[in-house]
Amino acid sequence: MRIVLDAMGSDSCPDPEIQAAVEAARLFEGKILLVGPQEQLQASLQTFEIPSSAIRIFPAPDVITMEDKGLKLALKAKRRNAQNSMAVGIDLVKNGEADAFVTAGNTGGALASAYYRLGVIKGVERPGLTGLFPVKGGYCVVLDIGANPDCKPEHLVHFAIMGSVYAEIILGKNQPRIGLLSNAEEAGKGNQLVQDTFPLLETSGLNFIGNVEGKELFQGNADVVVTDGFTGNVLLKSTEAVAKLITDMLRQELMRSTRTKMGALFAKPAFESIKKLIDPAEVGAAPLLGINGLVFIGHGRSDERALLNAIRVTRQAVSAGLLDALKAAIEERISKLSTQVEK
Amino acid sequence: MRIVLDAMGSDSCPDPEIQAAVEAARLFEGKILLVGPQEQLQASLQTFEIPSSAIRIFPAPDVITMEDKGLKLALKAKRRNAQNSMAVGIDLVKNGEADAFVTAGNTGGALASAYYRLGVIKGVERPGLTGLFPVKGGYCVVLDIGANPDCKPEHLVHFAIMGSVYAEIILGKNQPRIGLLSNAEEAGKGNQLVQDTFPLLETSGLNFIGNVEGKELFQGNADVVVTDGFTGNVLLKSTEAVAKLITDMLRQELMRSTRTKMGALFAKPAFESIKKLIDPAEVGAAPLLGINGLVFIGHGRSDERALLNAIRVTRQAVSAGLLDALKAAIEERISKLSTQVEK
Repeated sequence: MRIVLDAMGSDSCPDPEIQAAVEAARLFEGKILLVGPQEQLQASLQTFEIPSSAIRIFPAPDVITMEDKGLKLALKAKRRNAQNSMAVGIDLVKNGEADAFVTAGNTGGALASAYYRLGVIKGVERPGLTGLFPVKGGYCVVLDIGANPDCKPEHLVHFAIMGSVYAEIILGKNQPRIGLLSNAEEAGKGNQLVQDTFPLLETSGLNFIGNVEGKELFQGNADVVVTDGFTGNVLLKSTEAVAKLITDMLRQELMRSTRTKMGALFAKPAFESIKKLIDPAEVGAAPLLGINGLVFIGHGRSDERALLNAIRVTRQAVSAGLLDALKAAIEERISKLSTQVEK
Repeated sequence: MRIVLDAMGSDSCPDPEIQAAVEAARLFEGKILLVGPQEQLQASLQTFEIPSSAIRIFPAPDVITMEDKGLKLALKAKRRNAQNSMAVGIDLVKNGEADAFVTAGNTGGALASAYYRLGVIKGVERPGLTGLFPVKGGYCVVLDIGANPDCKPEHLVHFAIMGSVYAEIILGKNQPRIGLLSNAEEAGKGNQLVQDTFPLLETSGLNFIGNVEGKELFQGNADVVVTDGFTGNVLLKSTEAVAKLITDMLRQELMRSTRTKMGALFAKPAFESIKKLIDPAEVGAAPLLGINGLVFIGHGRSDERALLNAIRVTRQAVSAGLLDALKAAIEERISKLSTQVEK
């Protein structure tokens, strides 16, 4: 198992990446391919005691930063001989020298680099950015959370097929329950996209449970929820923001008096549980489903623990043969779908 | 001041409505017009000591329930001689016998009834369902939160004009900051609707601060956030669901051991603040902006306190001349906008 880790991804890179690579080398079998500025990485790695064969450095002098956008970003992502860490790392996957690529860097950059360099799975038009949302009793796979602000019904069906495979592999769900995010539970309700997607999902052969609202999503009633990348991104960012607002306010209120401070002290285990619930580091990273290769993207604020979890979930996907499973599922269902769309 | 209260709105109606009407009669000047089953309301009211002139009952033998939908709902809302409490109550506003209508009933029913019976303000195509979201340091006016799942750019501009007036009147903001909900802050980012709406808002003469994401919304960076009714509804329901998930989990975790139970006891004032933050009863009700008449809708779970707050905010809107202010703002800006759209 050979996992590429973008050493220049996270906001505090490359230290958390180096530490995560070292920890992964200790915990897991296989190789970590660390991509970034060779000399700096080499110097840092020498301060750790690790088997020399477990981590290999691949030089990439350039970097895609969080500030890169628009045409500049597209060029960095697309250029055949690009020397940024994402391009070099993804090319390792493309050339069969590695099994998967993990980054905590610029999401748009990872998306564009993966799309241009690896292409998409045959039959898939748009890759979906996937999120694992903490819900009551576990997690829910949500896609698209930002790759495609405007989607067609077929895209949402592809997301459902791929999300179903991912939930099976990562959440261990048998026949994952697929929900369609909407503003009302009843069939026939929703915006035009939802109304057009509903009948396609109904006859897709997937375990489609119908429209779901925020309540059902966070109560854990669905294993996979599909939506367009605009709504999914608003969902992600607004629920993160509310969780932060509540926990910030709670912290502030608890520090207000001696009495509440004492309460906070005694209640600490409870607060730790909440913190864990809403901590993206627990999940580590989520894949770009539909790309012809495994690319996992973590939060920019990822620390060592988040990156280690990112490597862990990526390894799980490689072991389970996620890419082949996605290809098989798409091929199996796509002919059925295209007949439907033509009707 | 004459406020119509739908006695058959809330999930536990009519008791909370009767109690809120009695309390309002004690606290406020003017009249409460209670609409519902005459005999039942009369019998209940007689158990309270109130000045006989403060509450007047208007008989409405029929009711729009939470289960009414589709064609049945449309007919109940539209029929000229409909005898349900929403129709009778809204007709009082239409005929100039009352200044505003308040209900905690079926939102779709209130929307349809208001639309068919009162029509829209000249120049407005679609009324926007408005929400007052709790954010850091106060509230944010968000619309549309569910009336129009598919919107055109002009609709969002109308929402912005009307939301600005509402924020001025209800939040006391001078030149309210208007944000456009998007999946990225940069101008030019977003789905097609956002991209088409951005330039219209930029030249609208409103205090447009650009695209906002969930983070900015909940940090209180905007006074008004506009979006289509699909995204707005997903935003509302998902953030409510996350808040509930967190507080439910916290409650459960705090009850786990003697130690955490003690913490909960000491920290009670802090939890009360959080409860207040996410309690829709604090706001009471929010208007359907764009309807040619004042119609305020509260949560179905409204209790007496929520309904009293609903009456309070409705009175505030009447006193401040919300309807005339909306008409003036639309008229002032609409000619400008239509020139732009033609370009």
